[in-house]
Amino acid sequence: MAKNYNIAILGATGAVGKELLELLDSRDFPVADLRLLASNRSVGERLSFKGANILVEEASDHALSNVDIVLASAGSSISKTLGPIAVEKGAIVIDNSSAFRMSPEVPLVIPEVNPNAITKHQGIIANPNCTTILMALVVWPLHQVQQVKRIVAATYQSASGAGAKAIAEVKTQAQEILEGRKPTTEVFPYPLAFNLFPHNSPLNDFGYCEEEMKMVNETRKIFNDSNIRISATCVRVPVLRAHSEAINLEFNEPFFSDKAREILSRAPGVKLVEDWQANHFPMPIAASGENDVLVGRIRQDISHPCGLELWLCGDQIRKGAALNAIQISELLVERQLVKGAKLSISS
Amino acid sequence: MAKNYNIAILGATGAVGKELLELLDSRDFPVADLRLLASNRSVGERLSFKGANILVEEASDHALSNVDIVLASAGSSISKTLGPIAVEKGAIVIDNSSAFRMSPEVPLVIPEVNPNAITKHQGIIANPNCTTILMALVVWPLHQVQQVKRIVAATYQSASGAGAKAIAEVKTQAQEILEGRKPTTEVFPYPLAFNLFPHNSPLNDFGYCEEEMKMVNETRKIFNDSNIRISATCVRVPVLRAHSEAINLEFNEPFFSDKAREILSRAPGVKLVEDWQANHFPMPIAASGENDVLVGRIRQDISHPCGLELWLCGDQIRKGAALNAIQISELLVERQLVKGAKLSISS
Repeated sequence: MAKNYNIAILGATGAVGKELLELLDSRDFPVADLRLLASNRSVGERLSFKGANILVEEASDHALSNVDIVLASAGSSISKTLGPIAVEKGAIVIDNSSAFRMSPEVPLVIPEVNPNAITKHQGIIANPNCTTILMALVVWPLHQVQQVKRIVAATYQSASGAGAKAIAEVKTQAQEILEGRKPTTEVFPYPLAFNLFPHNSPLNDFGYCEEEMKMVNETRKIFNDSNIRISATCVRVPVLRAHSEAINLEFNEPFFSDKAREILSRAPGVKLVEDWQANHFPMPIAASGENDVLVGRIRQDISHPCGLELWLCGDQIRKGAALNAIQISELLVERQLVKGAKLSISS
Repeated sequence: MAKNYNIAILGATGAVGKELLELLDSRDFPVADLRLLASNRSVGERLSFKGANILVEEASDHALSNVDIVLASAGSSISKTLGPIAVEKGAIVIDNSSAFRMSPEVPLVIPEVNPNAITKHQGIIANPNCTTILMALVVWPLHQVQQVKRIVAATYQSASGAGAKAIAEVKTQAQEILEGRKPTTEVFPYPLAFNLFPHNSPLNDFGYCEEEMKMVNETRKIFNDSNIRISATCVRVPVLRAHSEAINLEFNEPFFSDKAREILSRAPGVKLVEDWQANHFPMPIAASGENDVLVGRIRQDISHPCGLELWLCGDQIRKGAALNAIQISELLVERQLVKGAKLSISS
């Protein structure tokens, strides 16, 4: 007996919101009623879903009544305000912001990694940060076979991570530079076109930025492994969409690259892209629009007897955000977990 | 008694060649005669030097007579052919290619790191690879205080590393993409504008590319330390000029970030760029045209008790190539080592 569900997208007009809409359609999610919510600015816009033009409504308490699943992607402060209200009204909130990710009561879920964590939800389920999802998808299958002791990551993050406006800004800057003009900056603190800079999220007292600490703390929570040691350097690069990551893994014993290759070639959500003859490996333009995280250049680390180097690219709007949230929704439906959740969030 | 020297630039019309010309001028190098050599294609062009328009001549045996210093930057195969001939004719060759870098008889020199190595030259002195120079300049002062055990590097390399044509190609590709057209590729195997890919130099049997192995082997030779363990992931990014590197260092004992900061703030050829309040650190656009390598985001590695993370950007045409070669020339002059060298190269 198939059921349909009332869905609300909170932040429907953003880059992730639009991807959520597209995925609900293309993956034939059992939608009964679809509500598109956004800030005042976007109210009155219409977005297309399965042939219908749906009016964007203002995100408010009222708009969250009679909703089964809220797919929230409108930023941390809106999630903090409206998330608990939606739960109070009977919805499950799948939250793409960082608002609740580290709350002990909130499952932080990548369906390919820790699907069972969703059963413990109390109304809110958090979607991990994009860089975390991409890395975790690739590292988890290896970690299952031989425990990862330490990760050193360097990221190459696209403009899309800062939203649709950021993508437009990089294009405008590129045009300005090509015409010999000074690039204008609004979304980012520095020009990104033909440039790059360490991720501009706030820094902690140890010199790590928020984005880097998300990779550290979220991975530990998702893996349910507080012993795994992680350091990351997050960098914004002038790529429009899809993040890349250079990952150095350290194990307690050697992890042979052939074995890693074999494991990753059949890992869910991961696609091995390695043509050593043609020097062809994952690239952001190849990962854009793809569901899978592309991984390649898997090699023994020549600087450490138990080290392994690899390179990955993933669509940060898709698997890094929207697709993961939809997969969580699908898992909830499959396990008949959608109705009747009540809030009990301490943070 | 100041002397002047006959200089030849081999590969004068390339990106590095033009920078060599500019630096000979701006640094008031004691030039007597200046010969600009290039391939057939560029013969007949004229380049300006101190008000004179100098004709570009064809690079040949003949053109290398009566030259004191050859600044070679025309690629490995030309260096292999013409380098030994120039030495035979009495010149010292400062070679920017990889042709002789690992030959035991050839000093591989960064003047701030191993200036004394030049005394052992037998006619050819090699300029290290750009990524190696930038990394070595920053790591060496720390290595002097506490031995570096292991380096894990991830690079963000600009188009300029592949020459003037590559810079033009990225600009053209960006324009094509902004106009909705398919980007054309000629210099690089894949589009680089709004994209990135692992460095396209040939791969060895262990999965490391030539560029990565240069960082490993050249650093060991320059540091005269065969124990230092190094792994690198080299990546080309759509930046026009200046390379960036995320560097993870491992020592035998903790190396405190404040101490590293203090050491690097007074290291030659290095400029500390750290404004933690403003989240402002080295960027390629800031490093372009600068002599110094910019370093910042120095922090304790939270994943390793003896680890240190740092971030650097350096002008790869300038300190990564042309400036280093000019500094070697200046050192030769200062130490009165220019005349009378004879060749004895085994490789």
